[in-house]
Amino acid sequence: MTTALTHAVLPESDIPTHWYNIVPDLPTAPPPPLHPGTKQPLQAEDLTPLFPMALIEQEVSTERWIEIPGPVRDLLRLWRPSPLSRARRLEEAIGTTARIYYKYEGASPVGSHKTNSAVAQAYANAQAGIKKLSTETGAGQWGSALAFATQAFGMECEVFQVRSTYDSKPYRHVLMETFGATVHSSPSELTNAGRALRERFPDTPGSLGMAISEAVEVAAMSDDTNYSLGSVLNHVLLHQTVIGLEALKQHAMFGEQAPDHLFACAGGGSNLGGIAIPYVRENLEGRASTHIVACEPKAAPSLTQGEYRYDFGDTSGMTPLLKMYTLGADFVPDPVHAGGLRYHGMAPLISHLYSEQLIDAVAIGQLEAFDAGVLFARAEGIVPASESNHAIAGALREARKATEEGTSPVILIGVSGSGQLDLPAYQEFLAGRMADS
Amino acid sequence: MTTALTHAVLPESDIPTHWYNIVPDLPTAPPPPLHPGTKQPLQAEDLTPLFPMALIEQEVSTERWIEIPGPVRDLLRLWRPSPLSRARRLEEAIGTTARIYYKYEGASPVGSHKTNSAVAQAYANAQAGIKKLSTETGAGQWGSALAFATQAFGMECEVFQVRSTYDSKPYRHVLMETFGATVHSSPSELTNAGRALRERFPDTPGSLGMAISEAVEVAAMSDDTNYSLGSVLNHVLLHQTVIGLEALKQHAMFGEQAPDHLFACAGGGSNLGGIAIPYVRENLEGRASTHIVACEPKAAPSLTQGEYRYDFGDTSGMTPLLKMYTLGADFVPDPVHAGGLRYHGMAPLISHLYSEQLIDAVAIGQLEAFDAGVLFARAEGIVPASESNHAIAGALREARKATEEGTSPVILIGVSGSGQLDLPAYQEFLAGRMADS
Repeated sequence: MTTALTHAVLPESDIPTHWYNIVPDLPTAPPPPLHPGTKQPLQAEDLTPLFPMALIEQEVSTERWIEIPGPVRDLLRLWRPSPLSRARRLEEAIGTTARIYYKYEGASPVGSHKTNSAVAQAYANAQAGIKKLSTETGAGQWGSALAFATQAFGMECEVFQVRSTYDSKPYRHVLMETFGATVHSSPSELTNAGRALRERFPDTPGSLGMAISEAVEVAAMSDDTNYSLGSVLNHVLLHQTVIGLEALKQHAMFGEQAPDHLFACAGGGSNLGGIAIPYVRENLEGRASTHIVACEPKAAPSLTQGEYRYDFGDTSGMTPLLKMYTLGADFVPDPVHAGGLRYHGMAPLISHLYSEQLIDAVAIGQLEAFDAGVLFARAEGIVPASESNHAIAGALREARKATEEGTSPVILIGVSGSGQLDLPAYQEFLAGRMADS
Repeated sequence: MTTALTHAVLPESDIPTHWYNIVPDLPTAPPPPLHPGTKQPLQAEDLTPLFPMALIEQEVSTERWIEIPGPVRDLLRLWRPSPLSRARRLEEAIGTTARIYYKYEGASPVGSHKTNSAVAQAYANAQAGIKKLSTETGAGQWGSALAFATQAFGMECEVFQVRSTYDSKPYRHVLMETFGATVHSSPSELTNAGRALRERFPDTPGSLGMAISEAVEVAAMSDDTNYSLGSVLNHVLLHQTVIGLEALKQHAMFGEQAPDHLFACAGGGSNLGGIAIPYVRENLEGRASTHIVACEPKAAPSLTQGEYRYDFGDTSGMTPLLKMYTLGADFVPDPVHAGGLRYHGMAPLISHLYSEQLIDAVAIGQLEAFDAGVLFARAEGIVPASESNHAIAGALREARKATEEGTSPVILIGVSGSGQLDLPAYQEFLAGRMADS
């Protein structure tokens, strides 16, 4: 056994002071969102019924560095900086010649990276005098994060949770309720969108697209309620860049350069964007040549199987049109356990990076994902989130290839969260009852 | 908002190299365990059917410092040192003049302090050629810890889980299974003890005492299977002293002396012993005068309501006789949610400290405990384990008293684990359905 460093832990003073916005550093500008009526580029005022101006400014900003407000940074200190760790026992378990590292976001209040954006969004809304936020949640991670963040700033929170996870992962809505939120199974009877979707798809397991429609409707109907989105949009990815910015510093603590490969799971794109975007900058500026791989589920393979075109972000067509890799706004993914990845599209910024060949993508089936997750849990003592298992599986493919080829690449995995509340999925996998969709 | 330190994080090099054994530093020696047949002090060879010699030596050692084996320390590095944090937002939430700190053990593989001893016990057994460990578990934390630790050293693990938590907290046994263990609801039909207990108490919710009887029987029947206990015994408390040893160093990072008050939950006594015993030494040697408070549940108030006498550690009378505060070996606590505290007795070492007035104790009802837990979760972003809520409630009593009196004591809470797998209990509490037993 080695005695070299296991976890690189940064001091609190190394929590980033600014978020990193890649837009000004890109070779070409990402296509703008369009107004669904006029098909013209969206104006800031089109978004004011849903979002506070501070977030709209972040959404369209061309500034490279955007300062993190003090009260947001104070909350980030509850769980940041997150550790970057060498997966020595995982390396031993598979006998690889690769060096594997992982950046773990599971120690946050809700066990995932989602709180990084939730506190930023809740703060901006509270500053604008908003009393309540409505949102959707897939696996429940985003809903829990926003439930925590809203109460921290004295606001209410109403969450529409995709029906399949509301039913199969009941602990998640209890967690949101513990933080003081109200949670509904979506599609619900509470909104026009929900009622229409229930009529159109009576037995639907629900989807993120449907839940977004409901949450947007609730926000649009009330002056003191805003909508909050846990992924997809530029400002959400922006808030997540703290992950990658910290990771850049942590390699040096192990005496490593930038990684040769970076694997992160991708549903809407916020986790991938958060860890990967600072590395895209390193690549663009010639300081690194990291092969960045989005690991999406076979059940919702927007990058690897979708079409790059303008589409709605939700199922009912209530959002602006976004240029993205999409399987179609009415595509309902199979109810796989990685509920956070069950999205028909991909963040426009990630889609643009993929289209410009600045990142790569791979689709992973859930049996391969959970096989990797169990291996990781037994080696590293962390049960990863269902979503994160896709990234681990992608990394293990690369590590095994390296072993065969006798190379020693540095592989970084973005482990987006803890799977403690995904244990019913592990139970299905261990019992051999999991489908490979 | 302040910008001073939130978490004191020690480098890996500060993981203790030795466990601290308080026995040689005590004014009087703790009463020895007795052989149940002869009523004479137990000999080492009486224990060899159940435990490897390395652990028996630790159990009876009078050495002050016992070196932590390298492979154990290598595993501890997966989650240690654990942070010691200032609960600034909790202080603000209750408007207290006290300064509140907490040492959080929930980031370990199974979300509790239990892994600290599990890896030490698994290693000692593996070194002795043992192929399998049998054990009991209450809330499931110990069982999960031993499941992780045994597979890390290539052993099997068989767990008897108290029926009430097996049924009410189903994620826990999935976690054990994810780490590769076999889990039974106790009392089971698999052992003589289990069958007899089911006949005697057909509708029993089970208890730690019953599950211990079953696990001991399994180990006693087989040469290559040993028994492993998650609390009560000296060697288990010894392994947990890493918690308090780290904490002693961490106060200084905040510029604080030793705390004025220390609160930790106590069921069998391993969590309390782990954090408190190094502080007892500080008190004994005149370097501190920390008021140490065991927080036990009203449902199993062994210290505050029990009798100090020799009693069996299990329900069926299969263990040695231990001098301890006990409610009687056949006492079955109400099925409160803090399953880890549902034990009829208290560790002999903790009992001795209490009898010598070196520590204090208080009994807390579960409504007060969960009220404290929800407050803590919303403030600090950590949902505490049901057990830990008792310590938080004890600390809040002291903090509120200080506010009334206008004093500013330093209060340290031992937060033994995460409550992510206790969310059904939070659901009951939030819905107003929890009994105050």
